[in-house]
Amino acid sequence: MSIVVVGSVAFDTIASPSGSVKDILGGAATYFSLAASYFTQVRMVAVVGEDFGVEQEKVFEKRGIDTRGIERAKGKTFRWGGSYTDNLNEAKTNFTDLNVFQTFQPRIPSEYNDTEFLFLANIQPTLQADVRRKMNGVRLTGCDTMNYWIQGTRAELGETLKLVDVLLINDTETKMLANETNLPRAAHKVLAMGPKALVIKHGEYGATIFFREGAFGIGHHPFRAPALPIEEVKDPTGAGDSFAGGFMGYLASQNELSREVLKRSLFYGGVMGSFAVERFGTERLQSLTRDEIDARFQVFRELTHLE
Amino acid sequence: MSIVVVGSVAFDTIASPSGSVKDILGGAATYFSLAASYFTQVRMVAVVGEDFGVEQEKVFEKRGIDTRGIERAKGKTFRWGGSYTDNLNEAKTNFTDLNVFQTFQPRIPSEYNDTEFLFLANIQPTLQADVRRKMNGVRLTGCDTMNYWIQGTRAELGETLKLVDVLLINDTETKMLANETNLPRAAHKVLAMGPKALVIKHGEYGATIFFREGAFGIGHHPFRAPALPIEEVKDPTGAGDSFAGGFMGYLASQNELSREVLKRSLFYGGVMGSFAVERFGTERLQSLTRDEIDARFQVFRELTHLE
Repeated sequence: MSIVVVGSVAFDTIASPSGSVKDILGGAATYFSLAASYFTQVRMVAVVGEDFGVEQEKVFEKRGIDTRGIERAKGKTFRWGGSYTDNLNEAKTNFTDLNVFQTFQPRIPSEYNDTEFLFLANIQPTLQADVRRKMNGVRLTGCDTMNYWIQGTRAELGETLKLVDVLLINDTETKMLANETNLPRAAHKVLAMGPKALVIKHGEYGATIFFREGAFGIGHHPFRAPALPIEEVKDPTGAGDSFAGGFMGYLASQNELSREVLKRSLFYGGVMGSFAVERFGTERLQSLTRDEIDARFQVFRELTHLE
Repeated sequence: MSIVVVGSVAFDTIASPSGSVKDILGGAATYFSLAASYFTQVRMVAVVGEDFGVEQEKVFEKRGIDTRGIERAKGKTFRWGGSYTDNLNEAKTNFTDLNVFQTFQPRIPSEYNDTEFLFLANIQPTLQADVRRKMNGVRLTGCDTMNYWIQGTRAELGETLKLVDVLLINDTETKMLANETNLPRAAHKVLAMGPKALVIKHGEYGATIFFREGAFGIGHHPFRAPALPIEEVKDPTGAGDSFAGGFMGYLASQNELSREVLKRSLFYGGVMGSFAVERFGTERLQSLTRDEIDARFQVFRELTHLE
């Protein structure tokens, strides 16, 4: 099994109460790929500039990630700068230099054509839809988006949502998309827009998955995976993308697409998100073992498990 | 088994997106008592004014709650007015008329002396400590507090915390009390102040219990109970007190004070909090059945349960 991810690769400059770093490897597709690589074969579609070198390339190579879909364009790689103060849940963006990402036109290598799973990270909705249409043979498509697209390109996003199976967004984005302040009611409105399942990421409180009636089996109850209370949160950047990587990666490693598998995927999403925040950038995601991942899965499971 | 609760009885005037009500029965001790009454014998210590009549008295009577500790003072009952806008997690206080509550000196009837459990609802910390000292024979004491006491009477609160077994507060209060923004680290600091366990209420995301090393059995992991995503939140008033009532009430109904019992108590806390918000005031808490409560307990359990 394998998964294609389309999204950003970036150099991040980050300050948090635990320190600061400059121009470290980041971007949604990067966090997603590293997290998913512990479960399945990952194939990237992205664009980088001339400043993207061997050092960065090696990070993906070591995790066996296929980078043939990473286009090298003239100019500089996308750069983002952000800082976190005491409220680690919210980043203050200091600068966004789109650079080569501004004119990104995803091109899918023919070698990726047999891929069964697809994840559309947070890019312009029409680009997401184009990729989805090109990858017509996939079994399941996951999708992310953000307030910028919800407010600025609602019609285009609406078209994209008709083409995806699982949408992964946070509480605020769900309420904004549905124009509804009650979360479960907002969830049902979003499901009516197209996705068969909606994963709402609650940050440090975990995530909830809502199912469209009849999708992935029977039952109408949502399901929640808790997040582990983490003592050492160094850098929250990429937590949501790592969550998506764990969720989609585990899903892509399973034969069956049942509710029980989606539930376990939700736990693995939380596990990978919790690892990501323990170190700056992708450091923790580069050197995990499957044993460490499964040990934390057990801790998460026991966190809410009654005898 | 039985439990004494010391706290406020009030008349509330509430506005929320679902409507508004005037002078309905409320107060921390009221919500707590009604919620706990489904699990154990509840004995109240509170003060009301001359406007507290047969109608209010009957609410407690119907649930078999012992009101011999409710003092009737000259003047009016405590009144609170609050409103909720779209963010149902936060009340805007419109007015607070303490009335007879201003000079409240809790008096414990001698008939309450054999009580095994005690809950100190949110009142001035020195009054909480006095009650705790008078009820010297209890097996376990639960305690609530709020930002007003944390900021204004920190030294007095510190003395109270040495005398209680379980403190139940929310995320913001925990961070404020510990002067620490990371929640697990804040939790450990609060446990060092005295309580054997700390229950942090996360509102719509559930609650987490942290244990002091060696308290209530072995192990160092916290435990979390999720909350059910509720489609119809009419009035969040009293959710935290109802949570405390479910938690302490279930605990008081069990012989053993083990971690497993505390975990189930945490789930029952979430269950009672979720019922409370479905109707204005105490309406839903007045007419539940134990079957309805246990059915929701199962739903909560399945909400995070992997096969």
